[in-house]
Amino acid sequence: MAYSPLTEQLMEALQVLPGVGSRSAERMALQLLERDRDGALMLSGALQRALDGVVQCSQCRILTEQPICELCRDPDRDHSRLCVVETPQDREAIELSGGYQGDYFVLQGHLSPIDGIGPDELGLPLMLERLKSGGVQEVILATTASMEGEATAHYLTEQIQPLNIAVSRIARGIPVGSDLGRVDSNSLSQAMQDRKLLGFEHD
Amino acid sequence: MAYSPLTEQLMEALQVLPGVGSRSAERMALQLLERDRDGALMLSGALQRALDGVVQCSQCRILTEQPICELCRDPDRDHSRLCVVETPQDREAIELSGGYQGDYFVLQGHLSPIDGIGPDELGLPLMLERLKSGGVQEVILATTASMEGEATAHYLTEQIQPLNIAVSRIARGIPVGSDLGRVDSNSLSQAMQDRKLLGFEHD
Repeated sequence: MAYSPLTEQLMEALQVLPGVGSRSAERMALQLLERDRDGALMLSGALQRALDGVVQCSQCRILTEQPICELCRDPDRDHSRLCVVETPQDREAIELSGGYQGDYFVLQGHLSPIDGIGPDELGLPLMLERLKSGGVQEVILATTASMEGEATAHYLTEQIQPLNIAVSRIARGIPVGSDLGRVDSNSLSQAMQDRKLLGFEHD
Repeated sequence: MAYSPLTEQLMEALQVLPGVGSRSAERMALQLLERDRDGALMLSGALQRALDGVVQCSQCRILTEQPICELCRDPDRDHSRLCVVETPQDREAIELSGGYQGDYFVLQGHLSPIDGIGPDELGLPLMLERLKSGGVQEVILATTASMEGEATAHYLTEQIQPLNIAVSRIARGIPVGSDLGRVDSNSLSQAMQDRKLLGFEHD
C-alpha cells in the first residue's frame, strides 16, 4: 500500500463529491496533506459549520440558516401565490426579474425516475400539505422548459387540480431548454405576466 | 444572493481542491447539503482525522501516521543506500519490483521553479542533513525520466558529490517520459540493477 490508512480513508471520502473518481481523489488528498493543510483545515471547518448551520426551509425547502427562510417569513409577500421552481438559482432569477411578489417552493430538481428522483425527493408531500391547509389560491409552475421540467409540471398539475387551487405555467417566453438563470430579466418578467392557466379559474 | 452565508463559505472552501472552480464547487456544495449529508459528514471527519493523524516521515517525507514510517524503522533494510523518488507511488512501484532493499527519500515532486518548487519544497535540507550525519554510502536517483526529473537528478548530483557519497542514476531501461508506476516490475528491477554511477566510486 502506497498510503497510510487515514490517507486512504480521505481518498475514499473525497469520492462522495460529484465528478470525483479515484484518480482525482488521490490527487486532491495528496494536495491537501502535502501542500495545503491550511486549505484542508478551512474545508473541514466549512463543511462542519454548513452541516450544523444550514437546513432546508420548512416551508419552501431552500437552504437557509433559520427554520423558515427570510422570504417565507416576509409579511409583505403575497402568500396566496406559490411559485414552484427547480433550484435556488431559478428562484433568484425570478426575484431579480422583479415581476413576482408571492411565495416560492423549491423542488431541488425535477422528476427523474431513472435517477431515483420521485415526488418524495422533490418534497411534494410537504407542498401538498401546505396547499391543503388553505391560503394558497394559485400555484405558478416555473419549472424549466426542458422535457423533464414539463413532465414535472404536468405531474404537479394533476396533483394540485383536485384541491380546487388554480394552477398556471409561466409563459413560453423563455427559450426552450435553457436555465432560468441565463434568461434576461425582461423576458422572465414577461413570462411571469403571461402565465397560462392550466386548471380552472379560482372563484 | 441565492445562497446562505455558510453555504457560500462552503462553496469558497471547496475551491482549495485542485481542479475545482466556482461552478464545480457550487454543484458539490449543493449535492452535499441537499442530497448527501451523510457523505458530507464522512468527508469532514476524514479530513479532520487525516489532518490530525497524518504527518510526513521525519526521515523520508512519506505520509505516515507515526513520526518515522514503517520502512525507515525496519532494521532489516540496508540503511547505507538511499533511493530518491518523486512520489509515494514511485516508491511503491520499486518496492513491488523487489529489486531494492535500501531506504528511500520521497521528494514529493521535482524541481519546478515556475511553480515555486525549489530545493526547500522538496525537503533537500533534510536529506543533506542525513547524508552529512554519515551512514549512507550511495544515493540512487530514481526521479522520472522526464526533463524535470533529469534536471532534479542533475541538481541532486551536484549537491551530493561534494559529500564523498556515491551517486547513481537508475538505468535507462525505463521508457522516457513515463511514470514509474506504469512500468512493469521486471524492467524496473533491471533498471535498478543497471544503475549508472554518476559520481566517484565510494572507498
